[in-house]
Amino acid sequence: MKVVLAQEILRANDQLAELNRQRFTESRVFVVNVLGSPGAGKTTLLEALARVWQTRVRMGVIEGDLAGTVDAERIERLGLAVVQINTAGACHLDASMIATAADRLPLSDLDFLFIENVGNLVCPANFRLGEHLRLLLLSVPEGDDKPIKYPVIFRDLGAVIVSKIDLRPYLPFEVSKIHQQLQVLCPAARLFEVSALKGDGVEEVAKFLECERAEFFAKTDRPHAQAVV
Amino acid sequence: MKVVLAQEILRANDQLAELNRQRFTESRVFVVNVLGSPGAGKTTLLEALARVWQTRVRMGVIEGDLAGTVDAERIERLGLAVVQINTAGACHLDASMIATAADRLPLSDLDFLFIENVGNLVCPANFRLGEHLRLLLLSVPEGDDKPIKYPVIFRDLGAVIVSKIDLRPYLPFEVSKIHQQLQVLCPAARLFEVSALKGDGVEEVAKFLECERAEFFAKTDRPHAQAVV
Repeated sequence: MKVVLAQEILRANDQLAELNRQRFTESRVFVVNVLGSPGAGKTTLLEALARVWQTRVRMGVIEGDLAGTVDAERIERLGLAVVQINTAGACHLDASMIATAADRLPLSDLDFLFIENVGNLVCPANFRLGEHLRLLLLSVPEGDDKPIKYPVIFRDLGAVIVSKIDLRPYLPFEVSKIHQQLQVLCPAARLFEVSALKGDGVEEVAKFLECERAEFFAKTDRPHAQAVV
Repeated sequence: MKVVLAQEILRANDQLAELNRQRFTESRVFVVNVLGSPGAGKTTLLEALARVWQTRVRMGVIEGDLAGTVDAERIERLGLAVVQINTAGACHLDASMIATAADRLPLSDLDFLFIENVGNLVCPANFRLGEHLRLLLLSVPEGDDKPIKYPVIFRDLGAVIVSKIDLRPYLPFEVSKIHQQLQVLCPAARLFEVSALKGDGVEEVAKFLECERAEFFAKTDRPHAQAVV
């Protein structure tokens, strides 16, 4: 009974997520669901991307937190369009929250919309929001055993970003272990090493995202391209 | 409807947690629910406590993870009694899992039983396991804004342990901010600063736990002491 209910909730969420995605695609905004533990550096990465892109690439942000507006205030200080969702205790964002938040954003004026999920390596995994891509941040201090312990969220990712790489001299962490584990869990995912605080590696992530966006909309514009070729 | 169901689940869990707690108290084992984000250093703290206590204080461990046995293997290498719970995707431990795991531990031979919860600052907050005390680890790299963002789990704690304190020279983190936020959320909680990897501060935590245990069983043995005095 409990399982059926959970499945029903997930099915309803999936349907709404698909509607969100259609809406985002029509507005030509590429939507990225940003996942990671509390304090993995999600907001700091978004700040660093905004500094790389300046006015050349237009980004908006939806911030998800149980409470407070700390992260949204940080994004707002950069002059970006931002909406804060307070989940009132809930452990993940869902598609209906995103539908409501999207109403308050100038979607057609954006190239990218980043959805910063609640800091959590478990619950957000199963809830699609309508995103085109999932990014997962794993910070060096969290340790290189996280894919073994939290395998579900390491599936179906566009990229894993190993963050706070500047702390590697002080901590035991082997990026090769993450690479090996990704070969099993999500071989298609790209792997980046970043220090968002110092700016190292952020340009590579920015380029990757621009390519993913361009590729996605090229396919959308020419849906039968593959058949023609 | 959803809310009622959630409340029923929590009520049933609370009842079972109370039975667990009675059983632990009768066995004179003091049970500590160890909470924190993925990679906050929960297992490393338990390893450090075992090194401080050696054979003088007897500790057992229940490890909670979505998958794998990485942490239980680490504890086993120290020669301690340990049971691994795999939650098969669930985001927190509950009282029924603990009842089952406790059957496999020599409770009466232990002074302390540590339950290392799933790494998660959200979901474990509402699920009592039968513990006598809750410890929350917050690592320096996670940032000093976590009580604002995850207030629920910062309530009803015996202590907050600021871990990985050796990384403070490299990161922005003010312990005074945690202190201020705890004054609002949980004024009774003690605050410790620890580097479990280097051993700094672990003896203070060990002493605190020993005192809490002694005080608890002194009260249990003389339930009307306060009235008599």
